[in-house]
Amino acid sequence: MKHLLSLESLTVQEMDAILERVPGFKHARGRHERPLVGQTWALIFSKSSTRTRVSFEVGLRELGASVIFLNANDIQLGRGEPIQDTARVLGRMVHGAVIRTFAQSEVEGFAQFSGIPTINALTDEEHPCQILTDIFTFQERRRESIRGKVVTYVGDAACNVPASWIFAAARLGFELRLAAPEGYQPSDALLQRAGGTTGPALPGVPSGTRCCYYPSGAKVIVTPDLAWAATGADLLYTDVWVSMGKEAESADRVRRLKGYQINEALVKRARPDVLVMHCLPAYRGKEIDDATLEAHADTIFSEAENRLHVQKAIVDWLVAP
Amino acid sequence: MKHLLSLESLTVQEMDAILERVPGFKHARGRHERPLVGQTWALIFSKSSTRTRVSFEVGLRELGASVIFLNANDIQLGRGEPIQDTARVLGRMVHGAVIRTFAQSEVEGFAQFSGIPTINALTDEEHPCQILTDIFTFQERRRESIRGKVVTYVGDAACNVPASWIFAAARLGFELRLAAPEGYQPSDALLQRAGGTTGPALPGVPSGTRCCYYPSGAKVIVTPDLAWAATGADLLYTDVWVSMGKEAESADRVRRLKGYQINEALVKRARPDVLVMHCLPAYRGKEIDDATLEAHADTIFSEAENRLHVQKAIVDWLVAP
Amino acid sequence: MKHLLSLESLTVQEMDAILERVPGFKHARGRHERPLVGQTWALIFSKSSTRTRVSFEVGLRELGASVIFLNANDIQLGRGEPIQDTARVLGRMVHGAVIRTFAQSEVEGFAQFSGIPTINALTDEEHPCQILTDIFTFQERRRESIRGKVVTYVGDAACNVPASWIFAAARLGFELRLAAPEGYQPSDALLQRAGGTTGPALPGVPSGTRCCYYPSGAKVIVTPDLAWAATGADLLYTDVWVSMGKEAESADRVRRLKGYQINEALVKRARPDVLVMHCLPAYRGKEIDDATLEAHADTIFSEAENRLHVQKAIVDWLVAP
Repeated sequence: MKHLLSLESLTVQEMDAILERVPGFKHARGRHERPLVGQTWALIFSKSSTRTRVSFEVGLRELGASVIFLNANDIQLGRGEPIQDTARVLGRMVHGAVIRTFAQSEVEGFAQFSGIPTINALTDEEHPCQILTDIFTFQERRRESIRGKVVTYVGDAACNVPASWIFAAARLGFELRLAAPEGYQPSDALLQRAGGTTGPALPGVPSGTRCCYYPSGAKVIVTPDLAWAATGADLLYTDVWVSMGKEAESADRVRRLKGYQINEALVKRARPDVLVMHCLPAYRGKEIDDATLEAHADTIFSEAENRLHVQKAIVDWLVAP
Repeated sequence: MKHLLSLESLTVQEMDAILERVPGFKHARGRHERPLVGQTWALIFSKSSTRTRVSFEVGLRELGASVIFLNANDIQLGRGEPIQDTARVLGRMVHGAVIRTFAQSEVEGFAQFSGIPTINALTDEEHPCQILTDIFTFQERRRESIRGKVVTYVGDAACNVPASWIFAAARLGFELRLAAPEGYQPSDALLQRAGGTTGPALPGVPSGTRCCYYPSGAKVIVTPDLAWAATGADLLYTDVWVSMGKEAESADRVRRLKGYQINEALVKRARPDVLVMHCLPAYRGKEIDDATLEAHADTIFSEAENRLHVQKAIVDWLVAP
Repeated sequence: MKHLLSLESLTVQEMDAILERVPGFKHARGRHERPLVGQTWALIFSKSSTRTRVSFEVGLRELGASVIFLNANDIQLGRGEPIQDTARVLGRMVHGAVIRTFAQSEVEGFAQFSGIPTINALTDEEHPCQILTDIFTFQERRRESIRGKVVTYVGDAACNVPASWIFAAARLGFELRLAAPEGYQPSDALLQRAGGTTGPALPGVPSGTRCCYYPSGAKVIVTPDLAWAATGADLLYTDVWVSMGKEAESADRVRRLKGYQINEALVKRARPDVLVMHCLPAYRGKEIDDATLEAHADTIFSEAENRLHVQKAIVDWLVAP
């Protein structure tokens, strides 16, 4: 029984097996195989989400499945009823599950007790479907591997999306620069959990910067210096400053993250062929300015669309014999 | 790319093209063509609605589509994320959209940016699917055209349903009488926007009445005099006094609209073969009395059912080559 | 037009006709007949419910239907709009309805006015689909009829689940012991409504016990003495102490029902081959202890799964010519 619970638990071979399935699904949309005919998959979402929900519902149906969408009002994962009971009941009724929730342990508990293929569609710890999509989108548009490239993440680097980027870099061997103020940086523990060794700073790196080195050749560099981090980047990437559930600390976040913005000046520091991505929704004037978002809209909305194709590839890989 | 965003933007030829498709779908329910096979359509509803939702979900599925229902909890059209971003994302994932929301500009923005067929399933300005259904139902039951007939709308005439009736009258050439107290009447600007010219009152018309004349031969007459407006009518039509979102002003509405009721006495003033319609839900004792609703239940519930058939015709017209 | 509104209104022959259909659906899951192809069924739920919703959605789809799920936000059964109006509208659009609501009269009103097959998926008065499932599960696992056996229900015996058990016992002829403290016992009126005659206590029965005798040979025994009630039982059965909607009286319920727990000591009083069932969700340490729940998990989760198969049988029986 295969699951997609995190990038941490995925090998390079497994990532490759997923990514190489994507073009087939993208180019043959509406005409590809339907391996889920006769199956019903459950979408279990403790947080609402347009993009994630629609991309999974459409994708699963185009693979032949029926879909049941259960939101926080319909089902309370991990509250009221223990996850092992919910998992055992649903595992006998449906054929697969896509879960968006808070604790990573809930997704893992569900996978363990349900006995059906389970996908992490966002937890507080990881967002593997998004980052696999981002990597696919990079390689699709640049027509070359992300291996050896420089990816610069701008903003809150202490949450799920940058965590998945760290595991992806560690596995695939690219340079990941996380540009974030103090208090919004990943811990050394996380960098090491991904298999890295904290080492001496690279020559020319600004003070206050941490470097971590991985057997794959990957480097993960955590720095408060955005200008340095963007210089020569192949990919500039950001996410909302205030994501769902963090509205209470909104004012403080905006104050601290101010300046960590992708804008025209920052893009000029990167490579001329730099790609700009955003996992959306975008808040113009906050983490990205309007001109940059619109100049790179074709990349950004292709990235959004690719969620559909990549997630089909994930499901197909999960259910393949 | 065709859309159905309003009756204002529809020509007579387009209305006819839709209406003539309806009987085929109605009489061959379950056996007609399925032009949407392989497609997924999104229903995006900022307000809940049993009739509109069920009629579209059933209709789209019977045309072959999968349907994703997104309500205000799942997606916040025009809030949080600009409509042009939501539209660009969904437009790459789904094949058509049915939107029920507040501002007309949101439906129009979605249509513009999504690049997929878009249907207005109710905004604050128009309710085109309902009024096309009402016209079909009138013509189906009377076995003659609504052209030249007298339609009397009773109640709040300053909202979406009477606005769509005004555009329908202006295009199709019938007499529309809007019986409503001051403060609940449409503006001259709206009457003129539909292509009319404010003119001299008809002979015998009570004081306080406005008349507007249209090239199609249509007349739109706005009057506080319900008894006059009902006299000789072919169709008596009403809607709830307090629709969703207006509960705060409820007591004042009920006080002002009191007396603008379709009841047995009013029906006696109309033609002997008058049809009584209501777009539901009905509040007995308010805008209609129980005896009249039940006496005309076959018309009223056929009108409700016809939403299903008319909306199939709309979708078929939208996607036809 | 057949409906499944209660066990009270079902004959033994009808129960048998449903139950004998179940193994076919269970053993041929994914390969059985699809009598609902081309139909859309509505699930109308005033209360949320994972198990009931998922089992019906999956089951109806595996029978070939499309499903529309309407929750309390989408539709307000019996509020706002009278049930006869909602029923008349939906009855013209969908082909069947599954309703989970409060008042039994709403389900019955819907069935009467809609003109489509209607299923009670839980009301304040009855839970027929659950009890038919429990009976099927008992007979499947024991490979013999429930007729003549001893079923002991533990806990709040004044609600819907025990009411359906009373009607089932009365029809099928088994001994039902309801072990509950004063204030949580069914009324004599209900026992008699099921066709019973209150009679003299059995020899050896503890004081404070009521006995009711039925033409089928059934006995329903209401007693506060849990130890006595469990002795020699073929089935020990319980439900949550505080079900949805009763949270306000929670503390008092827990205090009064304390001690009415299925645990290892109680199981020892029953037959060696006793089955333990729970209609879930389970609250460990309240109505059941963890060790007993896990020791009998295979029965309990098979019972949950059987909802799927039994409800398919119910639908198939409803729509059979």
